[in-house]
Amino acid sequence: MTNTPPPAEQADPEQADPEQADPEQADPEQAVAGRANAVQAAREEALTDEVLASFAGTESGRTQELLEALTRHLHAFVRETRLTEAEWAVGIGFLTRCGEITDAKRQEFILLSDVLGVSMQTITVNNETVRSQSGSNEMATEATEATVVGPFFVEGSPEVPIGGDVAGGAAGEPCWVAGTVTDTSGNPVPGARIEVWEADEEGLYDVQYGDDRVAARAHLFSDEAGRYAFWGVRPTPYPIPDDGPVGDLLKATRRSPMRASHLHFMVSAEGLHTLATHIFVRECEFLTRDSVFGVKQSLVKDFVRQPPGTPGPDGRLLDGPWSRTEFDIILAPER
Amino acid sequence: MTNTPPPAEQADPEQADPEQADPEQADPEQAVAGRANAVQAAREEALTDEVLASFAGTESGRTQELLEALTRHLHAFVRETRLTEAEWAVGIGFLTRCGEITDAKRQEFILLSDVLGVSMQTITVNNETVRSQSGSNEMATEATEATVVGPFFVEGSPEVPIGGDVAGGAAGEPCWVAGTVTDTSGNPVPGARIEVWEADEEGLYDVQYGDDRVAARAHLFSDEAGRYAFWGVRPTPYPIPDDGPVGDLLKATRRSPMRASHLHFMVSAEGLHTLATHIFVRECEFLTRDSVFGVKQSLVKDFVRQPPGTPGPDGRLLDGPWSRTEFDIILAPER
Repeated sequence: MTNTPPPAEQADPEQADPEQADPEQADPEQAVAGRANAVQAAREEALTDEVLASFAGTESGRTQELLEALTRHLHAFVRETRLTEAEWAVGIGFLTRCGEITDAKRQEFILLSDVLGVSMQTITVNNETVRSQSGSNEMATEATEATVVGPFFVEGSPEVPIGGDVAGGAAGEPCWVAGTVTDTSGNPVPGARIEVWEADEEGLYDVQYGDDRVAARAHLFSDEAGRYAFWGVRPTPYPIPDDGPVGDLLKATRRSPMRASHLHFMVSAEGLHTLATHIFVRECEFLTRDSVFGVKQSLVKDFVRQPPGTPGPDGRLLDGPWSRTEFDIILAPER
Repeated sequence: MTNTPPPAEQADPEQADPEQADPEQADPEQAVAGRANAVQAAREEALTDEVLASFAGTESGRTQELLEALTRHLHAFVRETRLTEAEWAVGIGFLTRCGEITDAKRQEFILLSDVLGVSMQTITVNNETVRSQSGSNEMATEATEATVVGPFFVEGSPEVPIGGDVAGGAAGEPCWVAGTVTDTSGNPVPGARIEVWEADEEGLYDVQYGDDRVAARAHLFSDEAGRYAFWGVRPTPYPIPDDGPVGDLLKATRRSPMRASHLHFMVSAEGLHTLATHIFVRECEFLTRDSVFGVKQSLVKDFVRQPPGTPGPDGRLLDGPWSRTEFDIILAPER
């Protein structure tokens, strides 16, 4: 080192004479406060760094990456909000209550993730916009948007033929749902497995009936032209369970627990990305305040009411009013 | 507007001819991918904004601020890490297991907060560096640093006189602890309430004995010169409970569950900020890898071993070896 700084410049900044400090900090008390702030910020940063360093030996690189990112964000949350110890205790108490109410049938942690939009953000990053990479730009089509799966999907639903009845005795206004399954290049997808499930007109899924009935839940397969159709019931809005801590959070934020009226789809086919989504009823008053942020404009559909006496598209004769809607499904390539 | 741009410049960027785009995106496929990325980023941002907006009606402004900050950070975590749905499910399962193991005696959510350094960061932001605002800069003193309270503090400890026995039958090498309590201007604080508690030589607190014994837990008051002293036991390291999900997390990250050897203090006095802290034993091998990040260099003390036969500072005659340490406590002003 040929250019050794004079000792004064090496002095610990904490020992610097406040009179020689930045003119804006010429007031000794302010200078003391300014240094205290810098010392404080350094302490907080050093703590975060210490925690991040503790993950250096993690066996899985991905686990390490996730823990580091989680730590950075949780520490930043505490630092930015200057979270008080009493508020931290409220948070611990909230998670504890979520644990207490959770059992085989009730999952409050998923509800919490849902109402904070974390579930939907996870869905969003795992179902990135996909346009056709082949053909001209004009032909490019986007894959159908995904939305939350929710807690009511059950494996092993009954199969119905195309045009068959999915309602299976569930109460509700009949609703004809039809469309096609294609890939992002516009090719029909024959034999796609289409799982559908929905609540009845009371807003209840079969698994909430308290018996073993299977209703408003089935699967079918698209035909050789990618077409499908079925009879379901017109969806109605219903609340998420709001008698626990997540319900209290919704009340504190004056938010509705209602989910916008919807019908669930899960569509899978060889070589294509499985799509879990809903379609929503355009008239539903909860479209703009769905409690779990599942609504995407591209998924809002016209459920067109048919006058009583109008025969169904399949010739079925119905006593009362019924609805019909169309939903064309575009599956992204497998990743 | 006198300088109306030509229609071409007003065109929807999604409809722009890729051949006219940025030269770096001249390849049509890249251009399509670039636009897809922009559409995707916009979707993710819009979702976060939608969740933030849902808190607009929150009754308490502070609750709204906390929920907004939490939402921003959780969404950023999901977006930055591109969290998969399977990883999200692992996270939900982890919280669920934390709930299952938590009961009146076991608090896994606090342990989780501890091992991620969130508890310590909360302590840190609530115990900001404080220097004396009065007197010359040379006289300025920093308040003693705080650290985690931990789960073993119990209200209603027995009182002992200055120089009294805190051990109360707890096994361990006797240890004389003495010091003064002052404010940040150097004034002695008489009558400060000093709560102390610690584990015995087996690493167990009295509440872990399984009976009603009270041991290694007491309170005393500083004298008119701010002085205090007591007999305790020399602290030893012990593990945090690691037979639950938090223990699994420590194993996955190859971290030790051990807490560095320490003795707890909680010191309160009229008009001053209550301080909860520890002192640590300088020789402890876990100082640099305390499982809850509670160690601060300023809190590491020499616990000086005395040869057998050396009488105690109070004239007490001891059969075997004993230690002594000093801890001067500086309390910050009340906030």
